[in-house]
Amino acid sequence: MADSIASPTERTHRAAKRYIYAFGGGRAEGDAQMRDLLGGKGAGLAEMTIAGLPVPPGFTITTEACNAYFEAGERFPDGLWEDVTEAVTEVERETGKRFGDPASPLLVSVRSGAKFSMPGMMDTVLNLGLNERTLQGLIGLTGNERFGWDAYRRFIQMFGRIVMGIEGERFDAALDAAKEKAGARTDTDLDAAALRELSAEYNRIVREATGRDFPGDPQEQLELAIKAVFASWFGKRARDYRKFNKIPDDLGTAVNVVTMVFGNMGSDSGTGVAFTRDPNTGEKVLYGEYLTNAQGEDVVAGIRTPQKISHLQQDLPEAYAEFQQIAARLEKHYRDVQDLEFTIERGRLFMLQTRSAKRTAAAAVKIAVDMVAEGIIDRAEAVARVEPAQVDQLLRDQFDPAARRAATRLAAGLNASPGAAVGRAVFSADTAVEWVERGERVVLVRIETSPDDFHGMAVAQGILTARGGATSHAAVVARQIGKPCVAGCAELQVDYAAQQASANGVTFRQGEEISVDGSTGEVFLGALPTVSARFEDQPELQQILGWADGIRRLQVWTNADKPEEAAQARAYGAQGIGLCRTEHMFREGERLEIVRDAILVAFQATRAKERRAAGEPLGDDDRAAIERFDAAMAKLERLQQGDFEGILAAMSGLPVVIRLIDPPLHEFLPNHESLLRQVVTFEAKGTPEDDPDYVLARTLYRAAESMREQNPMLGLRGIRLGLMIPDFVKMQTRAILNAAIAVKRAGRDPRPEIMIPLVGHVNELRRTQELLEAEARAVIERAGDGIAYKFGTMIEIPRACWVADQIAELAQFFSFGTNDLTQMTFGYSRDDAEGGFLLKYVEEKILPYNPFQTLDPVIVDEMKMATDLGRRARPDLEVGICGEHGGDPESIAYCHRIGLNYVSCSPFRVPVARLAAAQAALSEAAERDR
Amino acid sequence: MADSIASPTERTHRAAKRYIYAFGGGRAEGDAQMRDLLGGKGAGLAEMTIAGLPVPPGFTITTEACNAYFEAGERFPDGLWEDVTEAVTEVERETGKRFGDPASPLLVSVRSGAKFSMPGMMDTVLNLGLNERTLQGLIGLTGNERFGWDAYRRFIQMFGRIVMGIEGERFDAALDAAKEKAGARTDTDLDAAALRELSAEYNRIVREATGRDFPGDPQEQLELAIKAVFASWFGKRARDYRKFNKIPDDLGTAVNVVTMVFGNMGSDSGTGVAFTRDPNTGEKVLYGEYLTNAQGEDVVAGIRTPQKISHLQQDLPEAYAEFQQIAARLEKHYRDVQDLEFTIERGRLFMLQTRSAKRTAAAAVKIAVDMVAEGIIDRAEAVARVEPAQVDQLLRDQFDPAARRAATRLAAGLNASPGAAVGRAVFSADTAVEWVERGERVVLVRIETSPDDFHGMAVAQGILTARGGATSHAAVVARQIGKPCVAGCAELQVDYAAQQASANGVTFRQGEEISVDGSTGEVFLGALPTVSARFEDQPELQQILGWADGIRRLQVWTNADKPEEAAQARAYGAQGIGLCRTEHMFREGERLEIVRDAILVAFQATRAKERRAAGEPLGDDDRAAIERFDAAMAKLERLQQGDFEGILAAMSGLPVVIRLIDPPLHEFLPNHESLLRQVVTFEAKGTPEDDPDYVLARTLYRAAESMREQNPMLGLRGIRLGLMIPDFVKMQTRAILNAAIAVKRAGRDPRPEIMIPLVGHVNELRRTQELLEAEARAVIERAGDGIAYKFGTMIEIPRACWVADQIAELAQFFSFGTNDLTQMTFGYSRDDAEGGFLLKYVEEKILPYNPFQTLDPVIVDEMKMATDLGRRARPDLEVGICGEHGGDPESIAYCHRIGLNYVSCSPFRVPVARLAAAQAALSEAAERDR
Repeated sequence: MADSIASPTERTHRAAKRYIYAFGGGRAEGDAQMRDLLGGKGAGLAEMTIAGLPVPPGFTITTEACNAYFEAGERFPDGLWEDVTEAVTEVERETGKRFGDPASPLLVSVRSGAKFSMPGMMDTVLNLGLNERTLQGLIGLTGNERFGWDAYRRFIQMFGRIVMGIEGERFDAALDAAKEKAGARTDTDLDAAALRELSAEYNRIVREATGRDFPGDPQEQLELAIKAVFASWFGKRARDYRKFNKIPDDLGTAVNVVTMVFGNMGSDSGTGVAFTRDPNTGEKVLYGEYLTNAQGEDVVAGIRTPQKISHLQQDLPEAYAEFQQIAARLEKHYRDVQDLEFTIERGRLFMLQTRSAKRTAAAAVKIAVDMVAEGIIDRAEAVARVEPAQVDQLLRDQFDPAARRAATRLAAGLNASPGAAVGRAVFSADTAVEWVERGERVVLVRIETSPDDFHGMAVAQGILTARGGATSHAAVVARQIGKPCVAGCAELQVDYAAQQASANGVTFRQGEEISVDGSTGEVFLGALPTVSARFEDQPELQQILGWADGIRRLQVWTNADKPEEAAQARAYGAQGIGLCRTEHMFREGERLEIVRDAILVAFQATRAKERRAAGEPLGDDDRAAIERFDAAMAKLERLQQGDFEGILAAMSGLPVVIRLIDPPLHEFLPNHESLLRQVVTFEAKGTPEDDPDYVLARTLYRAAESMREQNPMLGLRGIRLGLMIPDFVKMQTRAILNAAIAVKRAGRDPRPEIMIPLVGHVNELRRTQELLEAEARAVIERAGDGIAYKFGTMIEIPRACWVADQIAELAQFFSFGTNDLTQMTFGYSRDDAEGGFLLKYVEEKILPYNPFQTLDPVIVDEMKMATDLGRRARPDLEVGICGEHGGDPESIAYCHRIGLNYVSCSPFRVPVARLAAAQAALSEAAERDR
Repeated sequence: MADSIASPTERTHRAAKRYIYAFGGGRAEGDAQMRDLLGGKGAGLAEMTIAGLPVPPGFTITTEACNAYFEAGERFPDGLWEDVTEAVTEVERETGKRFGDPASPLLVSVRSGAKFSMPGMMDTVLNLGLNERTLQGLIGLTGNERFGWDAYRRFIQMFGRIVMGIEGERFDAALDAAKEKAGARTDTDLDAAALRELSAEYNRIVREATGRDFPGDPQEQLELAIKAVFASWFGKRARDYRKFNKIPDDLGTAVNVVTMVFGNMGSDSGTGVAFTRDPNTGEKVLYGEYLTNAQGEDVVAGIRTPQKISHLQQDLPEAYAEFQQIAARLEKHYRDVQDLEFTIERGRLFMLQTRSAKRTAAAAVKIAVDMVAEGIIDRAEAVARVEPAQVDQLLRDQFDPAARRAATRLAAGLNASPGAAVGRAVFSADTAVEWVERGERVVLVRIETSPDDFHGMAVAQGILTARGGATSHAAVVARQIGKPCVAGCAELQVDYAAQQASANGVTFRQGEEISVDGSTGEVFLGALPTVSARFEDQPELQQILGWADGIRRLQVWTNADKPEEAAQARAYGAQGIGLCRTEHMFREGERLEIVRDAILVAFQATRAKERRAAGEPLGDDDRAAIERFDAAMAKLERLQQGDFEGILAAMSGLPVVIRLIDPPLHEFLPNHESLLRQVVTFEAKGTPEDDPDYVLARTLYRAAESMREQNPMLGLRGIRLGLMIPDFVKMQTRAILNAAIAVKRAGRDPRPEIMIPLVGHVNELRRTQELLEAEARAVIERAGDGIAYKFGTMIEIPRACWVADQIAELAQFFSFGTNDLTQMTFGYSRDDAEGGFLLKYVEEKILPYNPFQTLDPVIVDEMKMATDLGRRARPDLEVGICGEHGGDPESIAYCHRIGLNYVSCSPFRVPVARLAAAQAALSEAAERDR
């Protein structure tokens, strides 16, 4: 590029910073790799030009020029304008047109184009270069006066609004006035004279608004337009978009200056957009629409109905054939489905944009599989092309999109657990069970849910709550059992007494059908039709996941408490159970009563047994407590053994990690506050002391009171509970091992792993291990039959991470409980924080994201330290994660990097995790190759 | 030593393990450095022998022999017995006496002697070597038949009980029978014939109990006695003692075999114990007692009243002179006060033991100071000689020991905060204040205390509670304000209604005087006289602490919330305030009402202000909330500014770290449960909705309900609260800086440091810093007067330790809040754990100690990581600790080692901390030199 006026120092500067990359005539200075510098659009134009595709000549001003512009205090950096002028000259040479030449005027479009597509950053300025004189040239060239004046008034309008900052309404008002005056219904009804008059009016508006004439000089127009594009980078819309999408401010935007081509020069002209394959289904057909005799904005404006792209074959067969061929070439070149813009000017095809196409989940999977079959990409690339969220989406039922649009939206809450649910509204868990038993589908509607509602949630199609956040009981349980859930729907008033609920003036009663979309948080009145999605019916998805299995290093296990869940997870490809929560078995139906019975006397019975062991005498009361406790524990043992047999059989041949009882005991009692209310009400009403209901309420209240803790999260639970009440450990050990022995005798291959929760100090684990192993030896001796089992621990207390080497001396496996680990490392109570300050923290970006959803880097550091220390003490230590993070793709990538053996997640996340684990392995390999 | 019978391999073995170290005749094979091998006693005997002191010849069997004995399955290791025999021969040669020689029998004592003195491990066996024949020799040599038979029967009794394991009562019964038969009042009334008869009876008892004759062979006696000493190492008493005192089991005990000398050979003989200085006062006088014509056990037995050691000068002037000279030599030799045992046999002095003397706190300080003056030890050693706990003791009032013995002990509870308190019992904080205002001294007696009782605790002499552990509100506050406190006195029944309390059948009413000993946990009826101890009156203590100041590297700051506390701490030598808790100022009297008023509308007002800032319209309700909130905050600001002025003035020239509001807001509201009770009672009684009490109860209940958290420890507090309600940060910033400006204008030198609690993520601190600095600039601008302040943060969240480098980019100082750090790192809620499983954990040694009292090594690791990371980012970062650990000597040693700048503790711990910090520096230097 010539450089006649730059000083020597400027030369040096400009040698380091090249601000302009031209393209045209089959040559381009940039290419597809230069997205950083040229933006996505500029890189695409250069690449297409190199590939010999018909691209109107033009040039791209780099993102560096944009940054230099701001560094210089919103002034063009030295030499930039000279280079622009020169590049324009080059385009003039290429096209044979000239800026401001009435005989053959050069018109250009000016567009922003950042590295990442940023919709809404800046509109396009078309037809730049027009003025009263060049307009005449355009009219002369096209022989179409109306076209000329229309182009001119559009240019003033667009440039005035976008570049000069004049309110668009002023131009709109003038246009409306012109139409009224002419009696015109639409813009197209205005004739050339009317448009000329309108142009004059527009010019007047510009003068009035800016105090100056509309700039007629194309050079000045160009300068102002470039500056306007630069300025748009720091416009409010662009800044907000970047903030939301975590795009850095210092990327800058490129500016593309491209020779205008006109799709509105008659019936042999046209413009359109098209995808190389159907972005909804993935089918291999050209998909898109176009209009003849139109400019780009007309396709969008909706004044005329565009034609399907296939019709172009009839309208302009040659252009269509060329386009078809170009589309195929571009798809092959970019090795992905392309989203194309084109214009046909008097039969001649011009390509204006190519970029990778957005697509639905179903299309993403089909396209990836098809492209492997077609030899375009390999399996690894196919695996990389599908987003984990798309896999999740494919496994959820969805409402039919058309029906959704037609339905009455009742309210919106939090999209707590994805999927579509339809059923009759019921307001209690018992009613839910009752109605389901008689064959109804129900949606459970509650103000909020508690563990007492579990049986109702389990049978409901979906759950709707008025209160509670993304980690309320309803949300967490719903995700766990794979039920759609809308939580925290604040607009909803639930009236249990009247058995009805209302929102926004609409009321529905028990039994009325409602539809709940857990993916969007919407609630509809009536039964919307759904589109179902079974894993078994999606061979292409299974194909992708099969390829993923060949790539990933991480195993994928599941969190499951019941045989049905285990079987479901196994069908989804789970390679083991990483977390079986025994206490969930305590909560169902009649069991809760047995558990409460045991808990009411657990401490007394344990102390009495200690005294008995020390040879001290016992009172009647103590002996009765022991008897009652032992009886309840014996019942529980039988029930738990049955449960374990089911799970171990379902997972025959695969490991099953069973966690001993974890939550504090008062979680199994009725709520302390409701008991207090009862007791105080009895008191205030002067109820006789021996009234049986009063006695029961007092007994339960006293028990709840004695077990109440100020901070239960940091209280008596997990291993602490097992050390305080050793019978829990012994009973559960017997139940697990006897179950394993029974399953083994039935010819299956049970692989139990016993996991101790909440270990902080190695001595806690040592004592528990002694207790447990003594019991295990006794079981095996009694049975006369050996059974192998592993002994391991959760790592969920920060302290445990620091002493993981000591712990690994005893534990054969670690499983990270990242929910507790996050709670304690941050000092957050998840229940309190997520509904409160944590929401604000994430909203205001004090935290980059919710650490309960994706692992925080410090938690990863702790996990890495624990893993490394643990393996130092025991090289074959098995390490996994069983917190909710185990199903989160970003967290899975962390787990891969620090070398875990497996992630364990809820059954419905298993396919997602399989894909995410493979992608983590691919990213790592890519980084290594770099 | 000759070695005639050992085989060559045995030789090798024995060359590696020498089991015997002899002493006698001015030579010894061991010395004072060999305590590990010879035990304290054996090393002392060897050292005294080398020093030329008159020590009866003998030998020590090593601790290694003891360990080898157990390794060999409770059998003497090869060669040991041969070496013993040979050593005996050597003693025989030295003394000219022989084992079993009737003409000149060798008698020995056999005693255990471990590295650390272990009282109650094994009694001494005296007179070993006696039998019917040597007894005659003894009688012949002494010419005293009664002495001979008395020695013999004593030997059978002692050996029978200690070595042969026969119940002592059987011998006692026979002795009583003999006395009855002889009509004797005391043992000494029995004549030779009666004692001979008693010896025969004792021999019979031995036969009956063991099925064999009493062993007459001195060799066998010796072998059995040595084995009995070894066995005593694993006796229950010894094991318990070691467990309690954290002494390892594998140290083993040595055995000392020493030639008997007899203090009971007439009036020219005697025996005694003495200290080289008075162990009670530290005065430089020989202190002790002796008896003429007596054996060691007679001094202890209390049958005859021993004489003061000074009387020995009249009784046996030559022996006294020699003893005095030896005592002085030993003290100088060991450079410490010695606890000596001696016997005079027919005018000849023998030294039997020397060891460092136990002493009272006062004596320890005086002796250390005196010895520096005498040139015996240097200042560093003087500082090392005083225990931190002794300093603490010297600063507490104590009950007069005689009066305590005479008083009625009412009950005993937990010694929660040391010191002696006397006053009239009152049962409410308001009564306490009222009575104190009219000039009474009171002791506040409560079932348990809450923040509402603070004003009563502050004016009371002491606090007594029936419930709550070492970290209950009562205990923690009492320690903080230096009041004696007995907590958790379970024997006490407190009846608020009747204004009385009772324990163990004794009742005291309001107004009756009681005495509370916070050092022992005892409660007495009536007013016990106290011995007061003012720091100002203890120049020697101040001297020691002055020397400590010259040695220590750590500064000692204090935790103080009020000017009086600050002044007190400064008098104690505090070099700054490391923690001033602003919220404590919120709680007193009328302030609590203002605070409650602010809290009731804080959230509403803050949201309304945000909407106002965004230009949204406000309702009347919102405007009223803002008005009410701002009014309350303005009142608080004035009050707080006054408080800060007082503290900054009192600490003029020294740093004052002021922590912004930390606890959750609901701590300032009435208890949620009591409010619920009120509301439910109103409901149940059908109280009209507009009843003003009901309205108030509902309002407060709703507020408490809306702020209630499941785990408040992990909830909305600290910096989180400041970010949710920025007015708290702004108001406190203004109050602090305006106070500093006022103090500066008054000519003092205020040095405020503003500290942000509970930071976990650097962004939290960044936002808060922006908020705070904007407010600070405004204050300084308004005042037209600059004021320097530091900005820093607590490090108390585990996550903060990992990102301390990021945090130190913003913070000029760190202060470790090790209470929270321990809670979160262990996952313990201190309030719940200490009354529950933590107690069991410490009792059962699952944890070696309570990590809330002494820093856990993992907490120290976290602190070290944070300190190192922080200093990497900011080399001059000021780092301290302000948790309760700051006053704990072991924790202070950790803080020294990881390089903190200061520890901050309650005012009353400042002197303790000064000493502990110096000792930490000395230990480190000693380790370096090693």
